[in-house]
Amino acid sequence: MNSWKIIKLLKIKPKSPILIEGLPGIGNVGKIAVDFLITELKAKKIYEIFSYTFPHSVFVNEDNLVDLPKIEVYYKKMPKNDLLLLTGDIQPVDETSSYEFCEKILDILGQYKAKEIITLGGIGLAEAPKKPKVFCTANNKKIIEKYKKDTGLDNKIYGVVGPIIGVSGLLLGLSEKRKIPAITLLAETLGHPLYLGVKGAREQLKILNKKLDLKLNLAKLDKEIKDIEQGLIKKTRDISAVSKQLAFKKLDKKKETSYIG
Amino acid sequence: MNSWKIIKLLKIKPKSPILIEGLPGIGNVGKIAVDFLITELKAKKIYEIFSYTFPHSVFVNEDNLVDLPKIEVYYKKMPKNDLLLLTGDIQPVDETSSYEFCEKILDILGQYKAKEIITLGGIGLAEAPKKPKVFCTANNKKIIEKYKKDTGLDNKIYGVVGPIIGVSGLLLGLSEKRKIPAITLLAETLGHPLYLGVKGAREQLKILNKKLDLKLNLAKLDKEIKDIEQGLIKKTRDISAVSKQLAFKKLDKKKETSYIG
Amino acid sequence: MNSWKIIKLLKIKPKSPILIEGLPGIGNVGKIAVDFLITELKAKKIYEIFSYTFPHSVFVNEDNLVDLPKIEVYYKKMPKNDLLLLTGDIQPVDETSSYEFCEKILDILGQYKAKEIITLGGIGLAEAPKKPKVFCTANNKKIIEKYKKDTGLDNKIYGVVGPIIGVSGLLLGLSEKRKIPAITLLAETLGHPLYLGVKGAREQLKILNKKLDLKLNLAKLDKEIKDIEQGLIKKTRDISAVSKQLAFKKLDKKKETSYIG
Amino acid sequence: MNSWKIIKLLKIKPKSPILIEGLPGIGNVGKIAVDFLITELKAKKIYEIFSYTFPHSVFVNEDNLVDLPKIEVYYKKMPKNDLLLLTGDIQPVDETSSYEFCEKILDILGQYKAKEIITLGGIGLAEAPKKPKVFCTANNKKIIEKYKKDTGLDNKIYGVVGPIIGVSGLLLGLSEKRKIPAITLLAETLGHPLYLGVKGAREQLKILNKKLDLKLNLAKLDKEIKDIEQGLIKKTRDISAVSKQLAFKKLDKKKETSYIG
Repeated sequence: MNSWKIIKLLKIKPKSPILIEGLPGIGNVGKIAVDFLITELKAKKIYEIFSYTFPHSVFVNEDNLVDLPKIEVYYKKMPKNDLLLLTGDIQPVDETSSYEFCEKILDILGQYKAKEIITLGGIGLAEAPKKPKVFCTANNKKIIEKYKKDTGLDNKIYGVVGPIIGVSGLLLGLSEKRKIPAITLLAETLGHPLYLGVKGAREQLKILNKKLDLKLNLAKLDKEIKDIEQGLIKKTRDISAVSKQLAFKKLDKKKETSYIG
Repeated sequence: MNSWKIIKLLKIKPKSPILIEGLPGIGNVGKIAVDFLITELKAKKIYEIFSYTFPHSVFVNEDNLVDLPKIEVYYKKMPKNDLLLLTGDIQPVDETSSYEFCEKILDILGQYKAKEIITLGGIGLAEAPKKPKVFCTANNKKIIEKYKKDTGLDNKIYGVVGPIIGVSGLLLGLSEKRKIPAITLLAETLGHPLYLGVKGAREQLKILNKKLDLKLNLAKLDKEIKDIEQGLIKKTRDISAVSKQLAFKKLDKKKETSYIG
Repeated sequence: MNSWKIIKLLKIKPKSPILIEGLPGIGNVGKIAVDFLITELKAKKIYEIFSYTFPHSVFVNEDNLVDLPKIEVYYKKMPKNDLLLLTGDIQPVDETSSYEFCEKILDILGQYKAKEIITLGGIGLAEAPKKPKVFCTANNKKIIEKYKKDTGLDNKIYGVVGPIIGVSGLLLGLSEKRKIPAITLLAETLGHPLYLGVKGAREQLKILNKKLDLKLNLAKLDKEIKDIEQGLIKKTRDISAVSKQLAFKKLDKKKETSYIG
Repeated sequence: MNSWKIIKLLKIKPKSPILIEGLPGIGNVGKIAVDFLITELKAKKIYEIFSYTFPHSVFVNEDNLVDLPKIEVYYKKMPKNDLLLLTGDIQPVDETSSYEFCEKILDILGQYKAKEIITLGGIGLAEAPKKPKVFCTANNKKIIEKYKKDTGLDNKIYGVVGPIIGVSGLLLGLSEKRKIPAITLLAETLGHPLYLGVKGAREQLKILNKKLDLKLNLAKLDKEIKDIEQGLIKKTRDISAVSKQLAFKKLDKKKETSYIG
């Protein structure tokens, strides 16, 4: 049985595209950064990906309707390298489906002759960092040099951090065999399931903005950081972080809402 | 290997049927409601569904004999929309089998040209609610409007509740692609594994009674609520709630009975 | 990939055989009883069953050599119904392989035109019972009547015990479809992973001795019960209970021995 | 889907080879010993093995680049029996893939007409042993006699140790059917996830040195033991032990670094 459903929504001919991945993870930093890019750059959705190996649940969206968990690829035409943006509600859960998913993404990248992969992840600390540092590692020395230049990225992480788990890590490892240079930017954040790593995402976006010449208005993100610090944010529909956080806040005043089914 | 066994017991030609799902879950509210409908409406069993992915155990029934865990579909002819009622001892456990099960149910609904799906679930609170509220969400705005009218259903649940896990959620998400409108009614209940959410089920049944014109005698359920509050109920054979609850009560006086095998 | 290896060691033509199952479980009562039967009746091994779904480990046997985890079927010619005895080091771990295993056993029983199945399990109590009671349930009322007669077996267990997990339960449920009457005898025992339910096994054997006219010398088992109570037993090679228990005893004097690999 | 990728890097014609296995496990003793052999004997890599069932993560290596988790086989020509050395970043995680992996290794050994298998594992104690003892068990009495002679190996382990979990155990059990004698050397070590069992590995290497006439300079290992005791080691790239240990040390002075992705 093929448990994967990959729906192509738009035919594109991207020019030397770069993939930026930001699926849910520690502090959701990667997802926050990529979702910001999708909104700011007005990127177009080109793929929806479903799988029977995804969590067997649905999420309530902003319209108070349900959505199946899905992963999406967006596309943005750019002056130099076009962008492919990978976001989603969830990550594949188990080992085999995580590997399978990454190979499917790499198949798509192969068709588009992708030039680079950038994955975005978080490093969970015991305390929320005031000014998160961004570390990197890659499948290739050249891409590290390229992204380190003028950005303050730190790539001395051997012996400091453990394994890089999930799609952010596997895409790096598996793309090596396909000769696609791939780098991950790992931003410090608080390692707590209810924490939203917007500050870490901001640091990642600053680097991407500079190196890919994205002309982003990061002030919007500063506004969002303030809103979160004041407990006002109600926007993202990511369940694994935001709605839990909201639920958490409401609990103080209301009552506990848990598992439904 | 095909791990599913779907046994058709009766050939029917239902008229624009509506499926009501009530598998075990939080407080078992959905199961209690659907089992009540099956008994009250004298519905006929039309399907038995077994799977090697179901729990590898058997349940002791009221005749002191064993039953394999199974899921059943019942049928009731009605003046307007005929009813299909989905109940069972268990839910599919893992992600893939939960998705597969829902697709199989939707295949059956496709053959019968089903008009609507109503799933029934619970929202687990930290305290047992005196007067449980019922919330809803759906795959479609129209069906929400239809069921909200004159019932007091609350559909403002974005950011308030987490993912809807299991068949109650997946049926909504997966039926969207098949163009079947589907709604879930989520009743508040105590989020404790030994608690029977009969009061929550009662609120769901009141809504169904009104909207589907079922002419139910809900007074019977009020009797059952009283019996449970007095610790007298011995009727349902659902293991995951009732027999644990009974065991729990007996423990006070007798001794601990646990895993068998 | 077929993960099952079923090795037939002996061709037999059993006469209306009865299967008695005793795989590891609560207190290992079933395994202790069936292993005793195999030794006392000098039964012959007719099948060895291996599976890639069994635990990925080996056990050290009495010769200080290793054995892969396996399940075995033994055969004993008897005046009336021949006996098939099912024992093993382990139970299939996950749902699907537990179902698959039982179907394979039932396939073998079908070839031999088996007349009955008796599974032996334990009911875990919070305290070790002085005089364990034996309960029963079955897939058929007649077989309950047959075994209750003159034995004091109690079959009023609805609402008292939870689901019967594993092969002892599934064999009952799955054999119903094949029209093989099947009963389980559940003996009370202490629900602790290091406890050996020899007393419970003794009560099961007394019933089997009487109903199947086995002419067993149960005094031997009484000796074993005494030995265990004095911490002397070193015989069985079952890891999940005995060797852990031994290790446990040694720990007091020596040091902790744990996971190896 | 075939989830295994076995890449052959070198064609060899080994002379009556002996496999020595040392994958990660308790105290990583086996891995430390085999990695030392590979370095000291300047063995050549002949196989790289990947699997979709391996952990879905990548490791940061000494060059600050990422590696997919992999298992490797090295080869060393020797005067008498050539050596095949099995090392890796990880062990197959679940039951089925552990069995499958071992069968694949045995297929390779079959092609090379391997004469013997030696697996290296740890026995986790509650305290770090000053002078770790080495125990053994095997699939065959002769190989025990061979390795016990003049080495002080203790093979009286029935009832003392539990099951031997993972590849170290399964290779013994599965090779019996292929008529390959196989022994495991189990060295005492501290049963703590951050402890590096270099002392235990040293005892295993002393035995191998003597019996296989390897002419090893074990003084280097004594240096390493001292370095570890002084917290200086930064060499191995094994994540499941070393980098955690390093991280652990850094935590005292810096801050907690955890899950990344």
